[in-house]
Amino acid sequence: MAAHTVVQTSNEPKDRSNLIPFSSRLKEGRALAQDVWSIFNAANLPADCLNLGQGYMNFAPPSWVTEAAGEALRSVAPNHYSHPRGRIRLRNAIKAFYGPQFQRELDVESEILVTSGANEGQYSVFTAFLEQGDEVIMFEPFFDQYLPSVTFNGGKPVYVPLHPPSADKVKPSSDDWTIDIAELRRAVTPRTKMIIVNTPHNPVGKVFTRKELEDIAAVAEEYNLLVMSDEVYDCLVYEGKEHIRIATLPGMWDRTVTVGSAGKAFAATGWRVGWLIGPPSIIQPTLAATTRIVFCTNSPLQEAAAAGLEQAQERQFFEIQRAEYTERRKVLTDAFDKLGMKYSNPEGTYFVLLDISSVKFPEDYPFPQSVLGRGRDFRACWFIALEIGVSTIPVSEFYCEEHANIGEAYARFSFCKDVDTLKEAAERLQSLKKYL
Amino acid sequence: MAAHTVVQTSNEPKDRSNLIPFSSRLKEGRALAQDVWSIFNAANLPADCLNLGQGYMNFAPPSWVTEAAGEALRSVAPNHYSHPRGRIRLRNAIKAFYGPQFQRELDVESEILVTSGANEGQYSVFTAFLEQGDEVIMFEPFFDQYLPSVTFNGGKPVYVPLHPPSADKVKPSSDDWTIDIAELRRAVTPRTKMIIVNTPHNPVGKVFTRKELEDIAAVAEEYNLLVMSDEVYDCLVYEGKEHIRIATLPGMWDRTVTVGSAGKAFAATGWRVGWLIGPPSIIQPTLAATTRIVFCTNSPLQEAAAAGLEQAQERQFFEIQRAEYTERRKVLTDAFDKLGMKYSNPEGTYFVLLDISSVKFPEDYPFPQSVLGRGRDFRACWFIALEIGVSTIPVSEFYCEEHANIGEAYARFSFCKDVDTLKEAAERLQSLKKYL
Repeated sequence: MAAHTVVQTSNEPKDRSNLIPFSSRLKEGRALAQDVWSIFNAANLPADCLNLGQGYMNFAPPSWVTEAAGEALRSVAPNHYSHPRGRIRLRNAIKAFYGPQFQRELDVESEILVTSGANEGQYSVFTAFLEQGDEVIMFEPFFDQYLPSVTFNGGKPVYVPLHPPSADKVKPSSDDWTIDIAELRRAVTPRTKMIIVNTPHNPVGKVFTRKELEDIAAVAEEYNLLVMSDEVYDCLVYEGKEHIRIATLPGMWDRTVTVGSAGKAFAATGWRVGWLIGPPSIIQPTLAATTRIVFCTNSPLQEAAAAGLEQAQERQFFEIQRAEYTERRKVLTDAFDKLGMKYSNPEGTYFVLLDISSVKFPEDYPFPQSVLGRGRDFRACWFIALEIGVSTIPVSEFYCEEHANIGEAYARFSFCKDVDTLKEAAERLQSLKKYL
Repeated sequence: MAAHTVVQTSNEPKDRSNLIPFSSRLKEGRALAQDVWSIFNAANLPADCLNLGQGYMNFAPPSWVTEAAGEALRSVAPNHYSHPRGRIRLRNAIKAFYGPQFQRELDVESEILVTSGANEGQYSVFTAFLEQGDEVIMFEPFFDQYLPSVTFNGGKPVYVPLHPPSADKVKPSSDDWTIDIAELRRAVTPRTKMIIVNTPHNPVGKVFTRKELEDIAAVAEEYNLLVMSDEVYDCLVYEGKEHIRIATLPGMWDRTVTVGSAGKAFAATGWRVGWLIGPPSIIQPTLAATTRIVFCTNSPLQEAAAAGLEQAQERQFFEIQRAEYTERRKVLTDAFDKLGMKYSNPEGTYFVLLDISSVKFPEDYPFPQSVLGRGRDFRACWFIALEIGVSTIPVSEFYCEEHANIGEAYARFSFCKDVDTLKEAAERLQSLKKYL
């Protein structure tokens, strides 16, 4: 789509042959580029390809949660506008569920904000806080939506890489992806406004350690930066690894907004219910933003999310779900082990990065235009999808252009699929052997 | 909430005693002002006050529509991410339902976009098209969300008034609110990018005539302007008055995006499902915007909205709903007639403007701070809510400051309430007589 720039110098009628030009903000932040999700969309791949690409489940939310949505739908008020802050039942449920984790009595009026998915919550924080030219530091690889969400709001992304495990590491874990605090510090300028932390981390699966978060916090404190801590995978942390919330570190509550998601928690990625937790100085301006962007979040599924949080503990829901995901992860990693391929065993999330640098594919393979001219990983993932029948996501998409080469070594596998699908994928993946 | 501006000249640590400042965009467009919805919120009014203020129903959506949501919730895929364009079932339903009204075969891939409520759809259009300083013309009174949605995206609102019925008009209708095309033309500058049309009009209830729309269209054509036509009340047009879509006028399809709403159509304001219909040159950039803002719209309620559109014709749903709203409107207007008060009989929407300039209230009435220093209508509406027990919305909120005095003469009554509630309100309103 070309932008037709209309140059005008007076109040004369414009040239009617021109299309009305779209905003220049769409020219930044890859907003109009064909994104990786479209390229590796199921519609573009063989029908029998197993989709381990996009991170959504091939199973339903728990029935006791969806039943609460059904009940809401049969009532009157939960079919109508919610308060822009969110329904009071959900805010109370968030307070009860998260309060102990934040070690504070959360105020439902000023410290909790329900948003139309975590994505819209994050977008609203950018709208509320970014001034034209403000810089936002994000660790690479980064959740790809951050980039255009920042640039749409006039911000400038600044990248600090997570360093991959060293080549001689035999069995790397996501913990072997490391940050260099000196690099973070060097990235700070007078225009830095915000640091985005993402733990557990998509796509690496890394759960940031207390030490790492303390180091980041020290930089945020020193330069008076806001921290947006994307913790949407907080309920998916494995093997007793501790999920630390940066907001709970000394002095950090006042400058941190923590992002949560009902979709990730309750296997309902299409419900678009998320939440922000933070001090009134962050939540109130963000409320002003989200009120104008969406006015409010859908009501029936807020009721369902509330029921989920209300009953989760009694039902040991998250413990059981973690055990299920641990099993799912093992199906995949066993398959990689059997192949003798390297991967970063994830401590959290439902993603695992496989090192695909050893996969050999013919350079004259009939690749579509959409993956040519992109990183090697785009071609490798395409080849694997078509030849092996398992679709994944190339990781260079999660890097800025300058650093895309780091990501080229990896494919992201999602294991938020039922065990049978994963076993079938594991079996198919064994045919990768002949391309190694 | 005060903004603490941090002035910096070097890479030195910022003053840590300062709050992190929010974006200057929140200082425009009334974004942080206490809005009329908060002031006249049920929570601030006596518990037994009948709420004819905010436009949401005190009845449920039709059960055959909510049942479709229930079915979706019991499935797998409709609980997960939808395509950012919207679920194909809903896009097909929109194509089938609206195609004939637009007199074209709508392309579900490029001419229809599902959004997270009409509000987020409109916001996305502004994000996609506004350049810093671009001017957006809106007719006053205007739906209050337009103003901050435009300023958040760097736009500048420009106001053109609808002129109220002349004082000697005995029984005015919403059609007696008129536009002056010469005024519209004078409002156009080299920076004008867009005109917002709202028909049927909130809060006036006016259904724009073909002639009026043709005149607006001629200005849009002449100056190559985009038209955002907010038609969320398109299914609520009374007495055989014809709803004309400006997009269907000669030459206008290419520059018009039409906004629709499942919430208004199916008495489900809390579902947050809306849609945009327009040419690919408008829909594609708007898709790029909405994809970043919310990623996608909630899935289960898209399925329900699809079921609604699929079955509406066979069930004569909109015909029946219109008859019900006609009855509801009559309950209110009969009460006004009995009082001998003037109102603009609405040809569309579920709002009616009552002329409250004849209502006398003691200036020393114990008004809260929130309504003092606002228009006379804020005090009148507060007085009516407390003394009569019926809450409404003061109309000066729908005007820019300069023209607020026009709105001061009116209170907006919503009749999207069941007949019993409206009858009770009608009875209570008779006590207004002693204040006239």
